[in-house]
Amino acid sequence: MKLEQSLYVYLFIWMEKMPGNTFGKLFRITTWGESHGKGVGVVIDGCPPKIPLDEGSIQTMINRRRPGTSVASTARREPDQAVIMSGVFEGVTTGTPIMIMVHNKDVDSKAYEPYANLFRPGHGDISYFAKYGVRDWRGGGRASARETVARVAAGAVAKAFLAKQNIEIVSYTVELGGIRAEARDLNLINNNMFCSPDMDAAQEMEKRVVEVKKMGDSIGGIVEILARDVPPGWGEPVFDKIDADLAKALMSIGAVKGVEIGAGFNAAGKLGSENNDAITPQGFLSNHAGGILAGISNGDDIVVRVAVKPIPSIRIEQNTIDTSKRPATISTKGRHDVSAIPRINVVCEAMVSLVLADHLLRQTAIQP
Amino acid sequence: MKLEQSLYVYLFIWMEKMPGNTFGKLFRITTWGESHGKGVGVVIDGCPPKIPLDEGSIQTMINRRRPGTSVASTARREPDQAVIMSGVFEGVTTGTPIMIMVHNKDVDSKAYEPYANLFRPGHGDISYFAKYGVRDWRGGGRASARETVARVAAGAVAKAFLAKQNIEIVSYTVELGGIRAEARDLNLINNNMFCSPDMDAAQEMEKRVVEVKKMGDSIGGIVEILARDVPPGWGEPVFDKIDADLAKALMSIGAVKGVEIGAGFNAAGKLGSENNDAITPQGFLSNHAGGILAGISNGDDIVVRVAVKPIPSIRIEQNTIDTSKRPATISTKGRHDVSAIPRINVVCEAMVSLVLADHLLRQTAIQP
Amino acid sequence: MKLEQSLYVYLFIWMEKMPGNTFGKLFRITTWGESHGKGVGVVIDGCPPKIPLDEGSIQTMINRRRPGTSVASTARREPDQAVIMSGVFEGVTTGTPIMIMVHNKDVDSKAYEPYANLFRPGHGDISYFAKYGVRDWRGGGRASARETVARVAAGAVAKAFLAKQNIEIVSYTVELGGIRAEARDLNLINNNMFCSPDMDAAQEMEKRVVEVKKMGDSIGGIVEILARDVPPGWGEPVFDKIDADLAKALMSIGAVKGVEIGAGFNAAGKLGSENNDAITPQGFLSNHAGGILAGISNGDDIVVRVAVKPIPSIRIEQNTIDTSKRPATISTKGRHDVSAIPRINVVCEAMVSLVLADHLLRQTAIQP
Amino acid sequence: MKLEQSLYVYLFIWMEKMPGNTFGKLFRITTWGESHGKGVGVVIDGCPPKIPLDEGSIQTMINRRRPGTSVASTARREPDQAVIMSGVFEGVTTGTPIMIMVHNKDVDSKAYEPYANLFRPGHGDISYFAKYGVRDWRGGGRASARETVARVAAGAVAKAFLAKQNIEIVSYTVELGGIRAEARDLNLINNNMFCSPDMDAAQEMEKRVVEVKKMGDSIGGIVEILARDVPPGWGEPVFDKIDADLAKALMSIGAVKGVEIGAGFNAAGKLGSENNDAITPQGFLSNHAGGILAGISNGDDIVVRVAVKPIPSIRIEQNTIDTSKRPATISTKGRHDVSAIPRINVVCEAMVSLVLADHLLRQTAIQP
Repeated sequence: MKLEQSLYVYLFIWMEKMPGNTFGKLFRITTWGESHGKGVGVVIDGCPPKIPLDEGSIQTMINRRRPGTSVASTARREPDQAVIMSGVFEGVTTGTPIMIMVHNKDVDSKAYEPYANLFRPGHGDISYFAKYGVRDWRGGGRASARETVARVAAGAVAKAFLAKQNIEIVSYTVELGGIRAEARDLNLINNNMFCSPDMDAAQEMEKRVVEVKKMGDSIGGIVEILARDVPPGWGEPVFDKIDADLAKALMSIGAVKGVEIGAGFNAAGKLGSENNDAITPQGFLSNHAGGILAGISNGDDIVVRVAVKPIPSIRIEQNTIDTSKRPATISTKGRHDVSAIPRINVVCEAMVSLVLADHLLRQTAIQP
Repeated sequence: MKLEQSLYVYLFIWMEKMPGNTFGKLFRITTWGESHGKGVGVVIDGCPPKIPLDEGSIQTMINRRRPGTSVASTARREPDQAVIMSGVFEGVTTGTPIMIMVHNKDVDSKAYEPYANLFRPGHGDISYFAKYGVRDWRGGGRASARETVARVAAGAVAKAFLAKQNIEIVSYTVELGGIRAEARDLNLINNNMFCSPDMDAAQEMEKRVVEVKKMGDSIGGIVEILARDVPPGWGEPVFDKIDADLAKALMSIGAVKGVEIGAGFNAAGKLGSENNDAITPQGFLSNHAGGILAGISNGDDIVVRVAVKPIPSIRIEQNTIDTSKRPATISTKGRHDVSAIPRINVVCEAMVSLVLADHLLRQTAIQP
Repeated sequence: MKLEQSLYVYLFIWMEKMPGNTFGKLFRITTWGESHGKGVGVVIDGCPPKIPLDEGSIQTMINRRRPGTSVASTARREPDQAVIMSGVFEGVTTGTPIMIMVHNKDVDSKAYEPYANLFRPGHGDISYFAKYGVRDWRGGGRASARETVARVAAGAVAKAFLAKQNIEIVSYTVELGGIRAEARDLNLINNNMFCSPDMDAAQEMEKRVVEVKKMGDSIGGIVEILARDVPPGWGEPVFDKIDADLAKALMSIGAVKGVEIGAGFNAAGKLGSENNDAITPQGFLSNHAGGILAGISNGDDIVVRVAVKPIPSIRIEQNTIDTSKRPATISTKGRHDVSAIPRINVVCEAMVSLVLADHLLRQTAIQP
Repeated sequence: MKLEQSLYVYLFIWMEKMPGNTFGKLFRITTWGESHGKGVGVVIDGCPPKIPLDEGSIQTMINRRRPGTSVASTARREPDQAVIMSGVFEGVTTGTPIMIMVHNKDVDSKAYEPYANLFRPGHGDISYFAKYGVRDWRGGGRASARETVARVAAGAVAKAFLAKQNIEIVSYTVELGGIRAEARDLNLINNNMFCSPDMDAAQEMEKRVVEVKKMGDSIGGIVEILARDVPPGWGEPVFDKIDADLAKALMSIGAVKGVEIGAGFNAAGKLGSENNDAITPQGFLSNHAGGILAGISNGDDIVVRVAVKPIPSIRIEQNTIDTSKRPATISTKGRHDVSAIPRINVVCEAMVSLVLADHLLRQTAIQP
């Protein structure tokens, strides 16, 4: 479609929205808030009662997405403080909705004023404007990655719930700016600023990030998420398969452009005899399936990977248009990360945790 | 997780299922039926009234997934006849639920008897048994690819609805058994048995298929789906993004192990300045975004690719176990395809059509 | 609103529908079919595996809504034969969708031709036409009470599931044509043609029905539904309370105009000291609450009543308009019941069973 | 069921909850918060963009449910201050989630300490404990009527949206403590403290309230809600009928025990020839249908009535048990209303507004 025609549509037919801010069927979250509004938050409905929960554990997970933990991210101070507003009494969940919120501080809308009428290439501001006919130019509004704070807060609750079932979820960087981690030593992922399971790769990644930063450009990469000790039998045929729900959960994160399970796109090039995981009384001999067969967990590790695109806001000048459709150029000067990785890792981990918590509830109903 | 432990779980804790056979919010389908039961079908709820619809157009699309159209698929005669049971009066939809069904014929359960107690590597029978504690060994039961007939029937209705908006959806094979289509000449996709947009590649694909068939093995590949003339503004932030819904829709197809949008996994290795699509008054200069920004359509072509794993049922002998957990070997002798491609292509096309029909309804509500 | 204006809207703005043919969250049904189409049916998604199920038990319940069982209903032969199309293997449910259908036979669309262009007072044909802009004049189309066959089939499955939990649901007529049943002897409800728990009332009801039939008029009444041995704790605050879901389930039946729980509208005139049910270690001393407190079952009998309006199709001449908005009169000559009672009773019972089956699944998830 | 058995269940099988705190399909609200927690609030997802909205209009509606407006309600100062946290920019909605919250102030948990281990007859504390196995004794927790503040805040947004369509919703008291309003002069409802459309009745109501207050008892009544100028065609067959959704919405309010549409329970005693609304080119000659035929609006006024039970907390001593199942007596000394009316009226009005806003969105999708 010609953009001209699109903009015509933008201006003359502003359209309705229908709600898409809820995720999950039984462990169910609804998020709210925009980048430069009063805050962001989440209502978690369906968390079982009697799960120990305090603000500290939520805060720990939120801190993992704060900026400044690596050279890849901006130095902006963003002291996100999680507050539990409801659903917890005397240190445990009560079964009623849990609302967790974070006030927005350190908000500087003025920095966005130069771009108030410019669409940023690679950004959602042009498609949001097409959708709503309203423009909240302050820091990306609801399209800002800031909405993921709410996902992480909810993910922390899901992780607490899964931990009671001895299910563990970890995430780590397997590619950044073209540098691949060959090793998978998960003990190392907290020992380097990029959460790489390969220290050699981590050093190369750092060099690459510094180099790209100087260029005023940005990079993407690949994050892998692993869930251990998920029992067999989770996932609902035929549409709510556990891999289908993981795909949706992860693809719904702004910067993600691809999701694969187990062997993923590599499976496309294999023979059946190579790709099938042979079965023995002691278990599967390989895990090309990524722990999922026909959309149902098979008891093996669940392995998912996501492709993260480079951050669209860059210092390098780019061609664009303004809201009146006139040609323009843009060069983003604000505080922007060089890469969404590693801040995005904990968001991926949160989304996987939410899918698993939901399917745990969907599967564990037993007849009395 | 050790399989031993899993099987323990299988036998002593049989678990409940919760419903996952419905897809879509407003254009909403619910499918039913298993491989060797009386039939398969779908209820479509939410199709607007006054859409012209007859059994012929549904039949045409269902015929595209029948076997025997290429050397890659079995020669089984499977005369799938679609019947509209409700929701259409005097040639148009009435707004009430449309039920379309196909009776199962040419069903030969006896062929499955040798495997009645064997789990097939790469198949869902082991995970289904873990889930339900019930084993429908006849041809895969609900886990069989036969359930996709219902998806295609529903997809035909979605396509008819989208056609009224001048939206067109096509699918084609861009990789098969390691052979890549370099060209993208969509005029060619009906001129070769693999639906390849590259005739040279199609010839190589045929050779590869014949070769693998002789080996008693199977292959996978990559299918690309393209949607033209989708208006900007479709998709619901933040979880029901249009790419998130596409990812779920496609990953829910049995053989799919990966989904990517636009540049997809390649975006992970690019610089921001390369990956961003520059904007001009005449439109975007490139389409790395695959027509979707921040989960909302931007007016450009929507481009999605899926990784299809090789068919797990192969003649080559494989290690497995039986339902009593004893080691065994299996070699599948029945009528099986060498590749899910190209029969799966129309299923992918159907799922994309269903997502778009749903988001068309979600977006077009205008205030009176 | 002036009807004139309404009809204008009818003709110039035909509107979209969105799907409302699904009921339940976890024990979930989707119905399809219209009065004079090929058949009616239901997909039940979420029924747990291993529930014994055969066509006989479904047929028994469907037979209870067939005409000709009392003087209140037409003598039309309507040999509804239930067929299970999927989801059952070797006599038990498999956990996959159960589709049950009934073909339409004994359909005589010609009888409706005289009214093809007339709106019938008290009927939904005028509001359906406003909604869809399409008129299926054959026997009421989707608005016909015939759609309730599908509810009853699904209700039979729900009852089979609840019976395993020793939960029993019964329905009976407590008022008909102004005649009230004073007694509540539930042993009698199968001993008289109106399902009255009071034999004296049953005799009066019969006289009243015969009298009204002669007049060419129709009558309504009140049905009570009782659920025994529902455990305490079912129902989801704050919107999916069990009484809220019962109210929706029952009000969704065509002829129902009111729903009340326990003391119901009588509670409005009582003092708190009268209406509260005192609690003792042995249980509640009364049951004005109808077994539900704050939307959650309290372990006592659940008691619900519905107001059933008189059948709108009557022989007596009534003023109306045709589809061109011209004044007309109508007198319905076809085979019509004098009262929806007692055929509606089993429909009410089915809807209550469906709500309880859904909340059983919602409540019984226990942490592993 | 014997309560003894129930309590056994309470103590040994504490059960999971599944989420029920969301209402609506397209205009969708999720509420959170408990009586003595940090606050209560609501996320509204699906409100179209460009609706003018400020805190003032929400505050006005919230003020209508504050105590102290009539002799029927306690004098507790409860300065509920609504704050819009997201979804509004430059005075209009943006299409993104609107979160509105009210902090809890004037909370005095100490007043509830004497009853910390006692179940209150007529209250939900015993059924909540059965459900969750957790007891939040402070002022009723989530079961408190305080949760309705969130409903009213959301209802104010729905009303603002409906007002743009010229749809008006009013509520008024038609019965209180056995005193019936015979007249229906809606101009009077703001002229008396009980929102009665009949001034004579209002005076009798006041006498009755004062009398009952002295007795330490409480009373119930009936509220009628009227929606004017709803276009024909709203409501989704067959389960999401507009009357079915109204029934659920209203029955989900804590004190409501019955819901009826139009003639309601009176229709049960009428002849068809009396109850049918004759149709003329100028419109319907009567409105026994309450504006709804076959679950779809017919363009006439929508009329709904709800039965409100007497407040369960009374000064008069009542028999009960404690959490250890020992017999006890209770006499509630705290600040309690004599009747939920008239504070509940605005809650009913809010719920009706939310149903209508949802069905407006469900119906107004027009094909492009």
